[in-house]
Amino acid sequence: MRDGETRIRLGMVGGGIGAFIGYVHRIASRIDDDYELVAGALSSDPALAQESGRSLGLAEDRIYASFAEMATKEAVREDGIQAVSIVTPNHLHFAPAKAFLEAGIHVICDKPLTSTLDEARALAKIKPKNGAKFLLTHNYTGYPLVRQARAMVANGDLGKIRVVQVEYPQDWLTRPLSSKQADWRTDPARSGPGGAIGDIGTHAYNLARFVTGLKTAAVSADLSTFVEGRRLDDNVHILLRFEGNARGMLWASQVAVGCENGLQLRVYGDKAGLEWRQDNPNQMWFTEFGRPKQLLTRGGAISGDAPPIQVRLPSGHPEGYLEAFATLYSQFAQMIRSGDAACPDLPSLADGIEGMEFIAAAVRSSHNQSMWTRLSDV
Amino acid sequence: MRDGETRIRLGMVGGGIGAFIGYVHRIASRIDDDYELVAGALSSDPALAQESGRSLGLAEDRIYASFAEMATKEAVREDGIQAVSIVTPNHLHFAPAKAFLEAGIHVICDKPLTSTLDEARALAKIKPKNGAKFLLTHNYTGYPLVRQARAMVANGDLGKIRVVQVEYPQDWLTRPLSSKQADWRTDPARSGPGGAIGDIGTHAYNLARFVTGLKTAAVSADLSTFVEGRRLDDNVHILLRFEGNARGMLWASQVAVGCENGLQLRVYGDKAGLEWRQDNPNQMWFTEFGRPKQLLTRGGAISGDAPPIQVRLPSGHPEGYLEAFATLYSQFAQMIRSGDAACPDLPSLADGIEGMEFIAAAVRSSHNQSMWTRLSDV
Amino acid sequence: MRDGETRIRLGMVGGGIGAFIGYVHRIASRIDDDYELVAGALSSDPALAQESGRSLGLAEDRIYASFAEMATKEAVREDGIQAVSIVTPNHLHFAPAKAFLEAGIHVICDKPLTSTLDEARALAKIKPKNGAKFLLTHNYTGYPLVRQARAMVANGDLGKIRVVQVEYPQDWLTRPLSSKQADWRTDPARSGPGGAIGDIGTHAYNLARFVTGLKTAAVSADLSTFVEGRRLDDNVHILLRFEGNARGMLWASQVAVGCENGLQLRVYGDKAGLEWRQDNPNQMWFTEFGRPKQLLTRGGAISGDAPPIQVRLPSGHPEGYLEAFATLYSQFAQMIRSGDAACPDLPSLADGIEGMEFIAAAVRSSHNQSMWTRLSDV
Amino acid sequence: MRDGETRIRLGMVGGGIGAFIGYVHRIASRIDDDYELVAGALSSDPALAQESGRSLGLAEDRIYASFAEMATKEAVREDGIQAVSIVTPNHLHFAPAKAFLEAGIHVICDKPLTSTLDEARALAKIKPKNGAKFLLTHNYTGYPLVRQARAMVANGDLGKIRVVQVEYPQDWLTRPLSSKQADWRTDPARSGPGGAIGDIGTHAYNLARFVTGLKTAAVSADLSTFVEGRRLDDNVHILLRFEGNARGMLWASQVAVGCENGLQLRVYGDKAGLEWRQDNPNQMWFTEFGRPKQLLTRGGAISGDAPPIQVRLPSGHPEGYLEAFATLYSQFAQMIRSGDAACPDLPSLADGIEGMEFIAAAVRSSHNQSMWTRLSDV
Repeated sequence: MRDGETRIRLGMVGGGIGAFIGYVHRIASRIDDDYELVAGALSSDPALAQESGRSLGLAEDRIYASFAEMATKEAVREDGIQAVSIVTPNHLHFAPAKAFLEAGIHVICDKPLTSTLDEARALAKIKPKNGAKFLLTHNYTGYPLVRQARAMVANGDLGKIRVVQVEYPQDWLTRPLSSKQADWRTDPARSGPGGAIGDIGTHAYNLARFVTGLKTAAVSADLSTFVEGRRLDDNVHILLRFEGNARGMLWASQVAVGCENGLQLRVYGDKAGLEWRQDNPNQMWFTEFGRPKQLLTRGGAISGDAPPIQVRLPSGHPEGYLEAFATLYSQFAQMIRSGDAACPDLPSLADGIEGMEFIAAAVRSSHNQSMWTRLSDV
Repeated sequence: MRDGETRIRLGMVGGGIGAFIGYVHRIASRIDDDYELVAGALSSDPALAQESGRSLGLAEDRIYASFAEMATKEAVREDGIQAVSIVTPNHLHFAPAKAFLEAGIHVICDKPLTSTLDEARALAKIKPKNGAKFLLTHNYTGYPLVRQARAMVANGDLGKIRVVQVEYPQDWLTRPLSSKQADWRTDPARSGPGGAIGDIGTHAYNLARFVTGLKTAAVSADLSTFVEGRRLDDNVHILLRFEGNARGMLWASQVAVGCENGLQLRVYGDKAGLEWRQDNPNQMWFTEFGRPKQLLTRGGAISGDAPPIQVRLPSGHPEGYLEAFATLYSQFAQMIRSGDAACPDLPSLADGIEGMEFIAAAVRSSHNQSMWTRLSDV
Repeated sequence: MRDGETRIRLGMVGGGIGAFIGYVHRIASRIDDDYELVAGALSSDPALAQESGRSLGLAEDRIYASFAEMATKEAVREDGIQAVSIVTPNHLHFAPAKAFLEAGIHVICDKPLTSTLDEARALAKIKPKNGAKFLLTHNYTGYPLVRQARAMVANGDLGKIRVVQVEYPQDWLTRPLSSKQADWRTDPARSGPGGAIGDIGTHAYNLARFVTGLKTAAVSADLSTFVEGRRLDDNVHILLRFEGNARGMLWASQVAVGCENGLQLRVYGDKAGLEWRQDNPNQMWFTEFGRPKQLLTRGGAISGDAPPIQVRLPSGHPEGYLEAFATLYSQFAQMIRSGDAACPDLPSLADGIEGMEFIAAAVRSSHNQSMWTRLSDV
Repeated sequence: MRDGETRIRLGMVGGGIGAFIGYVHRIASRIDDDYELVAGALSSDPALAQESGRSLGLAEDRIYASFAEMATKEAVREDGIQAVSIVTPNHLHFAPAKAFLEAGIHVICDKPLTSTLDEARALAKIKPKNGAKFLLTHNYTGYPLVRQARAMVANGDLGKIRVVQVEYPQDWLTRPLSSKQADWRTDPARSGPGGAIGDIGTHAYNLARFVTGLKTAAVSADLSTFVEGRRLDDNVHILLRFEGNARGMLWASQVAVGCENGLQLRVYGDKAGLEWRQDNPNQMWFTEFGRPKQLLTRGGAISGDAPPIQVRLPSGHPEGYLEAFATLYSQFAQMIRSGDAACPDLPSLADGIEGMEFIAAAVRSSHNQSMWTRLSDV
């Protein structure tokens, strides 16, 4: 928040007591002091919605039993919310996103965009009232060194990109598990046709696209389900072909024992290579061909002539997941205040649709003996 | 903040435009939503104080030109501040701390406690009005794995502690440097008799004490100044003897080229050893004698039967410096609300005095051919 | 070498002055004192063969101009060689291997087995005289922790294997390069139909098979050539399906800038996971589900009840590439002395043939739109 | 071994069945094919000496019951040994070293030089017959990156050295232990006045001296014994002052649970810093002030203009402890063949005497309240 500005009034759909990602969104919204949470439809369970709203200190008349009611009523309040965070399971993204955009309220929506590609495409056809904007929280793109990597690629520091290796292994679904988090993610009705591929595969895919800027030509996928009785994939193996002849591999897994959130991106060009891991996000390897490996640090000395990336803390003091998330929130606040139509660093509706195409193409390829499948063909 | 609670009204002394640590304190105060910054004496330069206050959205009548005025006026407002953060250079800790404690306003104060041991001891004699409480922001103690380490030692998981190796190397003062941050830290009038030992040595010392609980018997110090013309130490070598016969080494440096904020603690007992580094704070090594090394993660699977430590995010999603700092703020908020006289996990005035004794003893030892010097003798 | 034993008399084909792998074989043969090099056909260039033999201190009459002459003459000497190391480019493996086996001389042969699958199959039909034995130097299988990994998998410590990620990135062929080492490896006439896949992909494949014991069902490959004018693949992306439903990915590259010999194997079962890297081969991660990661060290404390692996040095003193290589040599010496027909830990002719099938299947798949291809179908 | 050279005939004192370091010396002597072991006085137990000699394939008449007999008889054989390796406990270094030097046989001796400083000084007064040479096996100086570090310091790449941090933690003596290795190392009669300081502290000290070239001014030591009943130190804390005002710390421990052979050297100058660890010896950090950290690899791309160091394998293929040890052996072979009086890279008798002075000074300082003690004063 800068001089003379006031906090953006924020609402939230989902994120009641016991939810994880809503809690994350709330911290992220506070870190740079750009938002004030003032309204919520925090649960589809009215009692829980009420209890959750009170625990967050919301005024009684702004604790809503449904997102629809919130959209309607907040849109007409003088002090109504200017933006809303949608932090529900995938199948509950489309309807509130549509409602708020049509009510002229900016939307911050968790990923993947929707539970089906049809919904995603329908969302793209909405006409937002008063230019209401949309942010998809592919939060890993908010890490400063991910931004730095993107800038270095764009700057040509790596030369022409040849090989992209991206992976996101976890192990929390190694065994059958029933929990608030696990249940909807393994339920096709709520998650959509993808399991691991939707939950973490899209993050990995988006990260590779964000950093390299390469356009995807086609995917060849082998999706597996290792836990008996599970109805969605829990391991994802994908070959990638990009336009311009770069090649890649994407691995996402929920059954890789010993991996917590092992998101990792490695990019190799004809001049240099980059390697970054989410679990130690304040460091990034950069190697120019024929030179020693360099360990770049967030905000530390840089190599090449790419512009430095904005950071909150001097190098050596680690920033983490919440700060990366907060960067998306604060840049979206800048978009809202400036009235800019887009911010090139922020994941957009178009990225959300591409993510859904990626899921659909991978599922189709996997059903067809890993046949190469173009995103544009799904 | 929990159900039914409201934010604690916070003021700030220092931390105007261009300051680093004030900015950190403000984010830390917001992360868990326990505080609202409403007043400030943000600079000793009135114009900068004014500009800084406005940029933070403070009301005009709560932007003060001096901490004394702020203490007086806020103490009598019905909506006056309940707590104040003091984020000035060392020589400007004592006076405001005294003023606010005597005004019945809780004090959050940066470390080291004061610029001289005499001031520190004088502060200890203040009678805070209405039981006003004191927090010293040895922020590294807020890292979840540091808490875990402390719990494991207390739980006996390491057995009897024998060896403690702690270090805090940096390199930012490798060459003569003039900047807002560097100038006061290398000026005896503002920093006190210690340079690196006060700025980072006390952090290292406090961390070792916090985790091990060992009481210091004596120190043997060799303080050096490598940069010509610098008036305070920029490298600190100290041998430590603890009660109960444990031994240790402490190294702090501002001229260790290639080190950013390399705070590291290693503790070895007769049953097991622990190793933790601040620059990747979400991991900690734990090794039981004769067993493989284990890599504990923040919030991840633990070893032994020490209680789990509270974290904001599941393991694998890194937390950082700001979250550790925020934990001190939120626990202090709990102390304030509960009325508890002390929180065993929070650095207190007594810790601050011990830190000043540590500086004084090390400086004296270094002046006396590294003679073993007891903290109680300074 | 044990009490009462004498050194095995060894010859060498290839490995003259300037060669790399012959030099490695010679050191490997000496480390455990089981061999004495006494004869050589060290180069196809007679002058270089002569010079090379003298520099190694060979007797004049045992410096041969051709492997054929060496096979014939040594076979009838009373003190003739008992074993021979073949360290020539791929297209020069078959003929000497055949000659020495038929002369009753044990063969130690570099990988891949031959330059074509037909040659490999022809070799399998040879009847070795006097039970002459064959060792294929997939040297990475000689690392103690690779042996340990294999024992742990066999012991059930990982449970049922689900996912296998193996990779071998290098960067030395990032740009067009002409050298003794590079020339034949990028020449189909000398290397065979595979470039990176033959040179390093077969190592990665063999390592995965050696450790997991899984049988390969089919491969889906995407081989690329990034350097203009190069006639063989320099990047290999392969999806793997194993019998019993495990899945895998294999990446090998000679253009991954910043990677030296980044051979890495990760294996995940339903009980635990393992991760090992060749560039720091004295450490291996082992994680049981729900437990902290453990860092096993070569010869250090182990986890589970798998038998300890033989090592030369106590843990903490690193062994390297040459020791792993030497282990193959010394175990082969034991095979020779004992007369055992096979050693389950040593790569055999059958492994060599499977490696050639792997190359052939991957090349075919890559030519057929990455169609899943069974090794038994090539 | 080069063209026209023959292997140096080697004898060994100590190193019988069950010994560790003798086994290491034998492998080291073979790796570069410069030596042939032909004689031995392998144990003070005649039966074990006999059995050990046979197991190594020595001729019956060259298996000796005592080093004295071996020195006398080998000195007059035409094919007598040219060099001898002394691999006995410390108190059995002096007598054989004296005997062989006076017999004109080159001596390779394990460290520390002797068990007392008096013996060391007596050894310095010996007049070796025929210029017999002396090598002290401070084997860690043989690591290629340690050589590289030394060359970089000498080349001025680090500027003027300010701070030296060296440590060698182990944990094998965490508890009372009785074994062939442990018994003599904890027995003052066989080890001398130093325990950990002699066994590993001298390695750490020598490494720091070797790389930096700094001359030691004085030490301030605090030696501890943590295991009850142990008669020698098992933990060593030392402050170092070097001529020219550089400062350092040395830590050696046998009770640091979780440490195997954690020898680590960090050197900081006014231009750059270096960090190297023995347990992953193929990598070294090098950071120029204000630039990103660089990870140098053994034989890989280098930084600055220091000359490259000779290696056996291309970078990425790890070399280890045995290769470093072998480098000392092969360079000593070159000294012997060339007749050069000294090799600047090889640890000499003078280094051995300084090591003994270091032990004596540290022990004296520790007995005198860690008083600063000059090596020249002991």
